Amino acid sequence: MFSPYQIELISKEDRHSMLAEILSTGEEIRTGATIDSNAAYIARKLEEAGIQVTRHNGVGDDLTTLAAVLREIAGRADVAVITGGLGPTADDLTAEAAARAAEVERVLDRGALASIEHFFSKRNRPMNSSNRKQALLPKGARCLANPVGTAPGFYLAIGKCTCFFMPGVPAEMKSMLTGEVLPLIDALRGGSPEHTLTRTITTFGLTESATGEKLAGFRTQFPEIRLGYRVQFPEIHIKFYLRGQDHSALQEQAARAAGWVSAKLGRKVLSLEGLSMDRVVAGLLIQKQSTLALAESCTGGLIAHLLTNVPGSSNYFLFSAVTYANQAKMDVLGVSPETLNQFGAVHEETAREMAAGARRRAHATYGLATSGIAGPDGGTAEKPVGTVCIALATPGRVFARRLYYNFADRLRHKRVFAVAALDVLRRELLAAP
Amino acid sequence: MFSPYQIELISKEDRHSMLAEILSTGEEIRTGATIDSNAAYIARKLEEAGIQVTRHNGVGDDLTTLAAVLREIAGRADVAVITGGLGPTADDLTAEAAARAAEVERVLDRGALASIEHFFSKRNRPMNSSNRKQALLPKGARCLANPVGTAPGFYLAIGKCTCFFMPGVPAEMKSMLTGEVLPLIDALRGGSPEHTLTRTITTFGLTESATGEKLAGFRTQFPEIRLGYRVQFPEIHIKFYLRGQDHSALQEQAARAAGWVSAKLGRKVLSLEGLSMDRVVAGLLIQKQSTLALAESCTGGLIAHLLTNVPGSSNYFLFSAVTYANQAKMDVLGVSPETLNQFGAVHEETAREMAAGARRRAHATYGLATSGIAGPDGGTAEKPVGTVCIALATPGRVFARRLYYNFADRLRHKRVFAVAALDVLRRELLAAP
Repeated sequence: MFSPYQIELISKEDRHSMLAEILSTGEEIRTGATIDSNAAYIARKLEEAGIQVTRHNGVGDDLTTLAAVLREIAGRADVAVITGGLGPTADDLTAEAAARAAEVERVLDRGALASIEHFFSKRNRPMNSSNRKQALLPKGARCLANPVGTAPGFYLAIGKCTCFFMPGVPAEMKSMLTGEVLPLIDALRGGSPEHTLTRTITTFGLTESATGEKLAGFRTQFPEIRLGYRVQFPEIHIKFYLRGQDHSALQEQAARAAGWVSAKLGRKVLSLEGLSMDRVVAGLLIQKQSTLALAESCTGGLIAHLLTNVPGSSNYFLFSAVTYANQAKMDVLGVSPETLNQFGAVHEETAREMAAGARRRAHATYGLATSGIAGPDGGTAEKPVGTVCIALATPGRVFARRLYYNFADRLRHKRVFAVAALDVLRRELLAAP
Repeated sequence: MFSPYQIELISKEDRHSMLAEILSTGEEIRTGATIDSNAAYIARKLEEAGIQVTRHNGVGDDLTTLAAVLREIAGRADVAVITGGLGPTADDLTAEAAARAAEVERVLDRGALASIEHFFSKRNRPMNSSNRKQALLPKGARCLANPVGTAPGFYLAIGKCTCFFMPGVPAEMKSMLTGEVLPLIDALRGGSPEHTLTRTITTFGLTESATGEKLAGFRTQFPEIRLGYRVQFPEIHIKFYLRGQDHSALQEQAARAAGWVSAKLGRKVLSLEGLSMDRVVAGLLIQKQSTLALAESCTGGLIAHLLTNVPGSSNYFLFSAVTYANQAKMDVLGVSPETLNQFGAVHEETAREMAAGARRRAHATYGLATSGIAGPDGGTAEKPVGTVCIALATPGRVFARRLYYNFADRLRHKRVFAVAALDVLRRELLAAP
C-alpha cells in the first residue's frame, strides 16, 4: 500500500526516472496457449505516460515461483504492473503470492467484498463462496475497482516497489489501468512527467542492413534519439524513441531527424507518419482524385485485399480482375491471344495489355497489373521463381518493368510483388501534377 | 556451445526434466510497440516437445541489461531460447551481449559468413559490410542456419545453460526453431524414450466457448489427452497433446478422440488433419475436378488471396472479379441495373447475379459471390455493419444466404465473410456426388 507519506519517500531527483516492470501470470501465458497482448498494451500506456518500462516477465500459476518473481521485481523496479490470477478458482494464486512476497497475511477486504457483492446483485446472479475468496487481499493492500468483471484488483508496496495487481481479462485490465492505475502512478511520481515520443518512418525498397548503412551517421547527428528498425515485410520501418521534459522540443528533434532520414533515403521513404504502402497509395489516390483498377495474376487478389483493408477504399478502388487463367486474361481484360502465345503469361507485354484492359474496363484513371511466378513451382531458367512483371496504364502511357526477387516462399513473393506494384503506382502519383 | 561431451554432463535423472526460459529482446518489445507472439509460439513448441517452460522474459536493446538478463537466466534454466537483435544494424546487440555474458570475445565465424555470403550470391545482391558484422559470433558459439533471411542464429553455453539465439522475424524464427533448435534440444536431452503427439482438428462456425461446451465430456472420456483450444480467427482449432512410451498407442488414442470430436461437432469440423478452410476447399475442388470463379465485393480480393496462397491453385481457381464499384458489377459480371436499383449492392438477389455472372464468365463449375458491409461505415438499421450476402452458383442452381456478424473491426469482418463464403462452397462440395 502506498500513502501520501510513502510518496514523500521518493526523492525529488528520482521523480522523473521511475522504472517499471510488467509481470504476466497464468499457465496459458507460460505454455504459450495465449499470446500475451496485455504486456504490450501496458508497456505502451506506461511509456506514453513517461514511465520507462525496463522489463517484461511471465510465469505460470505456481505459488512459490510467483512470490519469488514478485520479490525479485520489487528489488529492481519502482513500479510493477501485474496481470492475471485474481479469479475465483483454485489456480488463482496471485493475492496469496503477493502476501507472501510482502510478508503479510491475507485479510478480508470490506471494500473488495462490497464491490463483488454489488457486481452480482446488479446482475441478479447468485454469489459463490469462491467469489468471497476474491476479497481476501494482502494486509495493507488497497482495492482497485473493477467495473467490468468480478475480480477486484489491488495495490500494495513490496519493499520500495508499488505493485499494481489487475485481472488478466484484457477488457477488465484496460479499464482498470486507465481508470485507476495510471492516475495512481502519476500521483506516486509527484506530477510533471517526463514525456516520451515515438515516431515511425516507413520505407520500401532497401533491405534492413542497407537502410542501416545509409543511416550510419544518425547516432552522431542525433545522439539524443534512440533508433530502431522493424521489418514489416516487405517494408522496413525506422523508429525514433525520444524522452525528455519538453514535449515540443522532442517533436522538433524528431522532425529534424525525420528530415535527415528523408534526405538520405529519398523516394524509398513511404511516410514520415508511419503509414504503410496501402495507406500511402490510398492517400495519394484521394489527393489526386484518381481511381484505380487492378489486373492481378501472381498476386492473386492480394493488392485488392490490401487496398480494401483501408476504410473508404470505395472512393478510389473500382475493380480488380484476378485473372489466374489465361482465358480470363483474354475474356475480361482483352489481352490478345497472340501476345499470350508469343510472350507467355509472364511478360512485360502481357502485363501492359492487362493494365490497359483493367483501366479501360473500369473507366479508371490508372490500371495496375501484375504477372509473375510466386512459386514454389513454375519457374524456368529465363523466368525463375520470384520474377514479376508490373505494368501501369496511366492517362498518357502504359509502361512495364520486370523485377526479380528471391525469397523463401510463395507468400513472401506474393507480398513483395504486391507492394512493389503499389510502389510503381506510388512513384507515378508522386510525379503526377 | 554444446558438444557430445557436454551432453554427458546432464545426469540421467535430469534428462527428462529440462527447464527452459524464453527471452524476447528489442525496443519494440520493451515499449509494447509489438505484441510478442514469438514467445508464445516458442513456449508452445517447447511444451509440445516435452520441455517445461518456466519463465518468459523481455528486455530492450541495452547491452548491459541484455548481458545481465542472460547471465541471470543461465543461472536458472537448462535451456534458453532468445529472439531478436541479430540483424545487421547498430541496435542489434545480442551477439555482443551473449559474448559478454559468457565472458568470451567475438570472433568471425566462417560458417556464419559463408551462409550470409550464400544468401546474397543466390539472390545476386551485393553484401554490405554491416552484414559481415552478423558473422561475428561469441567464441565457442555454433552457427544455426537461416534459410529464410540473412541473420544466422547461434547457440552457446553460458554457464550450465545452453542458449539458442534466433532472429526476431517470426518466419525466420519459426523455420530455425523447427529445423535446428528443437532437434538440438532433443539431442541435448539425450533422446527421450517418451513420445509426444500433437493433433489439430480445425473447425468453423462455433465460438470457442460453444466449442468447449459441446466437448464438455472430453476429459472424462479421454483423461490421458490434454485438450487445448486455439483461435485462428475465424477458425477454432482443437488441439490434442499426448505423451507416452508407445507411439502407435498414442496415434490410436488420438484417432479415437478425433472420431468422438467429429461426432459432436459434425459439419463444423473442417479437417481432422489440421487443415484450414482454404486448403480444405482446395482439396475438395481438386478431388471433384471442379473449377471456381469468384465475385468479391466486401471481401475485396481476400478469398482469391487465401485460395492462391495454396500452391497449385491454378488447377481449380480461374478468376475473381473484385467488383467494388457497382459499374464493375454490371460491366464485368452482368448484374442488371434493375436489381442494383431495386435491392442495392448488398442483397441476396445481387449476390446471386454476381455468382452466376462470375461462373458464366470464367466457364467455371462454381461461381461464389460476396456482398456485404465490412464497416466501419456504410451500415443501416436494416443492413448493419457485419451483414454479408453469400451466393453460390452451381451447375444446377443458384442460391444465396444472408449472414450477420458483429466483430470489432473491418479486417475481422472481411476475414469471417471470406471464410463463411468458402464454408458455403465446402458444404456444397461435400454434398456433391
